[in-house]
Amino acid sequence: MTAPDPPRGFPEAEHRARLALLQAAMAARGLAALLLTTEAEIRWVTGFLTRFWESPTRPWFLVVPAQGDPVAVIPSIGAELMGRTWIRDIRCWSSPDYADDGVSLLAATLAERSPPDAEIGLPMGRETRLRMPLADWLALSERIGRRRFRDDGGLMRDLRLVKSEAEIEKIAAACAVAGRAFARTPEILRPGLPLSELFRRFQILCLEEGADQVPYLAGGAAPGGYGDVISPASDRPLARGDVVMLDTGLSRDGYFADFDRNWSLGPPAPEVADAHARLVEATDVAAGLARPGATPADLAQAMRAVLGGGEIDVGRLGHGLGMELTEPPSLIAADLTPLRPGMVLTLEPSIPLGPGRLLVHEEVIVVREDGPQFLSPRIGPGIPVV
Amino acid sequence: MTAPDPPRGFPEAEHRARLALLQAAMAARGLAALLLTTEAEIRWVTGFLTRFWESPTRPWFLVVPAQGDPVAVIPSIGAELMGRTWIRDIRCWSSPDYADDGVSLLAATLAERSPPDAEIGLPMGRETRLRMPLADWLALSERIGRRRFRDDGGLMRDLRLVKSEAEIEKIAAACAVAGRAFARTPEILRPGLPLSELFRRFQILCLEEGADQVPYLAGGAAPGGYGDVISPASDRPLARGDVVMLDTGLSRDGYFADFDRNWSLGPPAPEVADAHARLVEATDVAAGLARPGATPADLAQAMRAVLGGGEIDVGRLGHGLGMELTEPPSLIAADLTPLRPGMVLTLEPSIPLGPGRLLVHEEVIVVREDGPQFLSPRIGPGIPVV
Repeated sequence: MTAPDPPRGFPEAEHRARLALLQAAMAARGLAALLLTTEAEIRWVTGFLTRFWESPTRPWFLVVPAQGDPVAVIPSIGAELMGRTWIRDIRCWSSPDYADDGVSLLAATLAERSPPDAEIGLPMGRETRLRMPLADWLALSERIGRRRFRDDGGLMRDLRLVKSEAEIEKIAAACAVAGRAFARTPEILRPGLPLSELFRRFQILCLEEGADQVPYLAGGAAPGGYGDVISPASDRPLARGDVVMLDTGLSRDGYFADFDRNWSLGPPAPEVADAHARLVEATDVAAGLARPGATPADLAQAMRAVLGGGEIDVGRLGHGLGMELTEPPSLIAADLTPLRPGMVLTLEPSIPLGPGRLLVHEEVIVVREDGPQFLSPRIGPGIPVV
Repeated sequence: MTAPDPPRGFPEAEHRARLALLQAAMAARGLAALLLTTEAEIRWVTGFLTRFWESPTRPWFLVVPAQGDPVAVIPSIGAELMGRTWIRDIRCWSSPDYADDGVSLLAATLAERSPPDAEIGLPMGRETRLRMPLADWLALSERIGRRRFRDDGGLMRDLRLVKSEAEIEKIAAACAVAGRAFARTPEILRPGLPLSELFRRFQILCLEEGADQVPYLAGGAAPGGYGDVISPASDRPLARGDVVMLDTGLSRDGYFADFDRNWSLGPPAPEVADAHARLVEATDVAAGLARPGATPADLAQAMRAVLGGGEIDVGRLGHGLGMELTEPPSLIAADLTPLRPGMVLTLEPSIPLGPGRLLVHEEVIVVREDGPQFLSPRIGPGIPVV
């Protein structure tokens, strides 16, 4: 059943296809250039993959002109690795430079690659960040003549919403790793084990099963439901009667898996068993609706109908997934993005079980022409008992 | 020899002491409030520790008024965890909200906690980021009346440069974990093992030895020196004659270790052995100079004198370390920050060995009144042979 792991990276043709989409969208919005500063945005265009972004010191820039190939304006420490991507125009400075950390080089590149009155797109909208010092961006804005930055109009967000088949293969491979790690978790679950130690051992399972890294892990353990879903692990030992949940965001070749699993240590309380069955039903119902033309709002509404009343405000019932742990869209009433084939979504309903207690379940699907395909190993309604 | 792991988190008094320093620095700069948006900045004040920042979707805010306690303006999914810190004024909205993702709530909070003509500090300078959509910040700037944002003048950077004893204990504990993982690495180093598999197994060692997570790992393996220091692992099998380097950034209780180790598979070439000895000598010489009043520039110059000529531009010869993998200062000629007791530094010299080949070595020290204290287990000049 296990598909072989897809090869690392992408062929140049994949990146050239993305560039063509990007430049068409830029033309439609009247953008003469686009400036990208974040890891995922730069990697989506170039394929530049490194864990070095964990260091916040240095800014990295990519300039995408209206025509022609992108220009990387980067610290010299990245020259060799960027040189192994398909990008040929790579301009470096020695960073950190306290007097001028790439601003002059970037201003000159923008001036060279865009007309004097250019409107330069920059992702400014929801879920975006500017990954450079704000003072440097303000200085840059003064150093590009009559050119002006403006919001890219969600252009990068829209393009990244739909994954290519090669991207879906990578997400599927990451989800398969997580599925194998979850399948082995009962080996390590036992009363007395501190939750913090469970977190460590689960990360080891993820690595043993093929994760490159485990950037995200959350979870909880408590009788009849855990308290929240974002806390770091305490040293509290697991106890019989606990519901245990682990929610991993592991990555392989730069693409994420993100889903969770619950276990009951000993027979579950009836309300826990009921809640688990209802959560699985909610994900199944939402998956069934995940066809082209439906919206994230439709899926959220369908899940809420199954979940019934009760409020616990975690903000949404799922999200996009890909190069980042969470990506657009959001499964909320306000998100009316029409689903398209190739969108990868997590379905993540939760049920409150009393003061400070809840249960959460999460699966990953990809939208196909003829319906959903589960990328996480689909489970039945019964909460696994250890 | 192993000190017991320090307890998790900090007492409220530690955070109150930081707040006092912060408000004194704000007063000195005429700032009526400070707005913080990044994980490390918010955690430094509040103690709010979660891996949930891996999700880029939601913005998080902390308002520090000139007097009185900070106000957290955060997505409701974080209410429970923030409620367990010492922060009492916690204002939440349901995020993501496409119409208003916290901007109104933040504007109202700033208006309430600062005078109408306030200058509100925001870290804008080097190594800082604004972690919210740029369009939201521009909108916020229009929604706060006559109040104006301005650069915090490096206030947060300056305060975070000097670590408290409790912080140093946490960094020391993380470095001890990495030291134990490196000590066990010869167990897993053998010809034929793909580098990608070595990376996985080394991360497992880090977790087994007590890391909470391993956010960063770089390294290389090649005959006579590796090509660069930021690439992800290839699947190339290790071979006799390789020099192998692993450089980890692991964390424990929110504080990082960051140092590397080299090994030779089989007897090293004389130039490799010489280079390794020179790198260790360079770190020792720099450590010897790391006394109050010396500067990062002094340490960089001393290392360059030992390393001799040859240029390979990785930008600097070491950096600060703490809540983030890399922090100010930078060991470069331009950094004239006077060293003070409590500053934690990595010393990270490199030597070029020919086209596309180099050797890098890294140690961690803390500056003390009477000289340096090594937090990484100091090593001798000989490259370990496996």
